[in-house]
Amino acid sequence: MLTRIDHIGIACFDLDKTVEFYRATYGFEVFHSEINEEQGVREAMLRINGTDDGGASYLQLLEPTREDSAVGKWLAKNGEGVHHIAFGTADVDGDSEAIRDKGVRVLYDAPRRGSMDSRITFLHPKDCHGVLTELVTSAAPDVADH
Amino acid sequence: MLTRIDHIGIACFDLDKTVEFYRATYGFEVFHSEINEEQGVREAMLRINGTDDGGASYLQLLEPTREDSAVGKWLAKNGEGVHHIAFGTADVDGDSEAIRDKGVRVLYDAPRRGSMDSRITFLHPKDCHGVLTELVTSAAPDVADH
Repeated sequence: MLTRIDHIGIACFDLDKTVEFYRATYGFEVFHSEINEEQGVREAMLRINGTDDGGASYLQLLEPTREDSAVGKWLAKNGEGVHHIAFGTADVDGDSEAIRDKGVRVLYDAPRRGSMDSRITFLHPKDCHGVLTELVTSAAPDVADH
Repeated sequence: MLTRIDHIGIACFDLDKTVEFYRATYGFEVFHSEINEEQGVREAMLRINGTDDGGASYLQLLEPTREDSAVGKWLAKNGEGVHHIAFGTADVDGDSEAIRDKGVRVLYDAPRRGSMDSRITFLHPKDCHGVLTELVTSAAPDVADH
């Protein structure tokens, strides 16, 4: 069962400048940052609020590390903006299989590693009214790395 | 101070079909629906989770009621997808003025009426790294109308 908005993924050309925009404009701070070589992104997670399922909601700012990554290609076509949305669940395996059985294309055969050692998969945007949709099960929700 | 992701605004061509997609695929139910003639939209709010500031996070599904509305023009150009994101605050007036003073364009001179009698304003996406950003103060957070 999907129990929270886990994050909003936002693609940007310059992660440092975008982090600074969110800090200076709204006071949002970086909760975690990492490079995901498989996804081809450098990312910063800004924690916005806690959620009543024991997790939290974040903005995930994404800068491609290479032009041929999914986010790099998306940015070249669309410019900066919201790239995807993510729902949190305690069971990404079960939920993604149930959704696949309903005829929605799930992009990975099995969940892969996401931010903060989460396990993630994506649903095809053409099956989701234009919204690239991620499902995520957190490893250790709501624990900062600094 | 912005204390939650209040909602993700998603533009769609057919509200009823999109509501049914979110219900059938994820089990999300309509918490509130209304027509906002000023904004030129028919909308459904799907409540996803409660937040630790006493509010909640929603998906806001938006179908234009006329082609020349902001959402209608956006849909004609972009197709279905994420139209805007919204942060919740107890003080949309003070926060929007403080953000205006930082040089970010605020689209309304004063906040206007939004979903569920909230008060809202928008920030120019070109000043926000491509993200149309709404600020919202709820009237009565987290109380369903049915």
